[in-house]
Amino acid sequence: LLFRARASQESVFARMSRLAAQFGAVNLGQGFPSDAPPAFLLEAARRAVGTHDQYSPPAGLPVLRDAIGADLGVDGGDVIVTGGATEALNVLALALYGPGDEVLMLEPVFDVYLPQARLAGATPVTVPMQLSAAKGWTLDLGALRAAVTERTRAILLNSPYNPTGTVLSREELEQIVALARAHDLWIISDEVYDELYFGAPPVPVRTLAPERTFTVGSAGKRLEATGWRIGWIACPPGAGVAGNIAGVRQQGSFCSPTPLQAAVAAALPLARTEGFYDHLRSEYAARQQLLADGLRDLGATVFTPRGTYFLTVLHPSWRAETLVEHAGVAVIPGEAFYAHHPAPEGLLRVAFCKSRSEIARALERLARVP
Amino acid sequence: LLFRARASQESVFARMSRLAAQFGAVNLGQGFPSDAPPAFLLEAARRAVGTHDQYSPPAGLPVLRDAIGADLGVDGGDVIVTGGATEALNVLALALYGPGDEVLMLEPVFDVYLPQARLAGATPVTVPMQLSAAKGWTLDLGALRAAVTERTRAILLNSPYNPTGTVLSREELEQIVALARAHDLWIISDEVYDELYFGAPPVPVRTLAPERTFTVGSAGKRLEATGWRIGWIACPPGAGVAGNIAGVRQQGSFCSPTPLQAAVAAALPLARTEGFYDHLRSEYAARQQLLADGLRDLGATVFTPRGTYFLTVLHPSWRAETLVEHAGVAVIPGEAFYAHHPAPEGLLRVAFCKSRSEIARALERLARVP
Ligand SMILES: CSCCC(=O)C(=O)O
Ligand SMILES: CSCCC(=O)C(=O)O
Repeated sequence: LLFRARASQESVFARMSRLAAQFGAVNLGQGFPSDAPPAFLLEAARRAVGTHDQYSPPAGLPVLRDAIGADLGVDGGDVIVTGGATEALNVLALALYGPGDEVLMLEPVFDVYLPQARLAGATPVTVPMQLSAAKGWTLDLGALRAAVTERTRAILLNSPYNPTGTVLSREELEQIVALARAHDLWIISDEVYDELYFGAPPVPVRTLAPERTFTVGSAGKRLEATGWRIGWIACPPGAGVAGNIAGVRQQGSFCSPTPLQAAVAAALPLARTEGFYDHLRSEYAARQQLLADGLRDLGATVFTPRGTYFLTVLHPSWRAETLVEHAGVAVIPGEAFYAHHPAPEGLLRVAFCKSRSEIARALERLARVP
Repeated sequence: LLFRARASQESVFARMSRLAAQFGAVNLGQGFPSDAPPAFLLEAARRAVGTHDQYSPPAGLPVLRDAIGADLGVDGGDVIVTGGATEALNVLALALYGPGDEVLMLEPVFDVYLPQARLAGATPVTVPMQLSAAKGWTLDLGALRAAVTERTRAILLNSPYNPTGTVLSREELEQIVALARAHDLWIISDEVYDELYFGAPPVPVRTLAPERTFTVGSAGKRLEATGWRIGWIACPPGAGVAGNIAGVRQQGSFCSPTPLQAAVAAALPLARTEGFYDHLRSEYAARQQLLADGLRDLGATVFTPRGTYFLTVLHPSWRAETLVEHAGVAVIPGEAFYAHHPAPEGLLRVAFCKSRSEIARALERLARVP
């Protein structure tokens, strides 16, 4: 087999879920919820199956493109539907970067950003986030600016940010936009947790720089159906950009599952009218508190997230690899998010999208770790 | 946007379906059926939604890998589930070819084979099929042999073959296997129409060369649900090959839709016990006859397929681009399958996976073409 296949390691998220199943561990690792998706989504899918079963256009079902557009405040014609956010990010890498290009991203870094940039022929350049007990995670804008070179082609942002839980402020985004404009960079904004925030709503960077921003979103994250694989790209308006992106997308997997697209199209407006995201936020705020309090009691330093359903913690003695086997609790090791810089000592990511009883059980088990 | 995005044209299949909708044409173009998928598949999906909604392993749900393995007579551990056959082929291109490599394929060629090989850095080399009124489509094994160079890395086969409808014989496959062994080539065998044949069942090339064959299959084609996007790769056994392929697959779209995977896992054995493929074959044989007879009456030379749900025809005056608008019948122009060699003059591909009434309506409309 070829270099690409030999270089591909099992994703840390898939691996920890596999180990969790193997050892009967409570799975606070991979970011998927314990709860079922909302009834309005399930019912829409049961109706769509048997009526929307054949190929859809590679760009997506028109009703879904329009529903996403309406939700985001963009034109449905600028939206491309993908096989989850992972495929959205891969399509953008292939469409926007080439050999010799550099792509700026922050570290800790979501694992798939790196091989996707490399597949496109580009070099991922990571800028480390600062972490301090007093201020938590902070962005070093000076370091970001200093990392731009002649070869930089794009900045890949993630806000709300997995795993740090940070949400970029309007001021930070304005400075990033100024940098992107000064060097004519694309902005790829991974906003899969756009509805999962615990303070003021995040500012979508596309509203500040519509001409250069590609927004990536996920029905799986929003609607608690991470296995449904419906993601999207909102492209800069006009000039045939979306059509070109669809061209790249169709080579990789042709189109997204039609019945699930139809279901998501029906569900997206209902999620608003039924207040589903408000419900999610208040429920997850409570679970976050439960988990954070419990972990602090066990000696962890907890960095309170402003978005996502992940906590980052430092603990002097816990190690993810041993916890899953010996404590029966799966979490993600901090090092999984570091490629170029050293991970903070003792960093772990712990998911709170799990049921209260699972969180309680995990805390009980962790309390027994010597 | 980058070269890859600029180079990406809308797929001819998507384009003809779009034009068919725009002009109210009967769609005998893109290969999707008019009938709904079988009830046993739909019911399984309605049950899976609400119970199988979160991420599955990138390699696929274990029950589905086992169901595919049992169906094909291979080990489920050697099966990787993908987002349709398009993604299966893309993953294999990325995993098996690299810069400088050549990949042999036959022409007429399914459109996506070419850009997928190029994305992987390889050069697609096509060997033309022979077409004669007396013998129909025939493979020129000498030409295939002559096309092998020091750089050839793989042979990409498609049998039953879209669009020609040919099925490679055991003797032809044996000679191809001998060639592959002599030059140590991979064989990628696109068998999405494996259950759609009208004579003796096709010989799966993996049974002749298990050590070097990757078989690509499609639940969408088999179960009349082309929009469900569940495909697979059966890898050569052992030695961690499947794990490496899964690694490449996870970078592109992480995993396939979990509820649809669960449904296909339940449906694959039922398709056998309920005789679903026998039903498909006899139904499509009848529709093929209906369409072929009608087209011959209108002056077309028809090449009887031994598999797939496509007819190739030559007609002295019909042109796909004008038929869709002026006759109200969408078909695929022969040139869409030719990149390096000239297409036979007047070649069209006409799908017979459509309802009898659509076929009859298309024939009526074509009869009125001046
Ligand atoms: C696509 S794999 C899992 C992604 C995610 O939700 C995580 O970071 O755990
Ligand atoms: C994946 S696009 C359509 C493929 C097919 O069925 C065709 O050749 O029409």
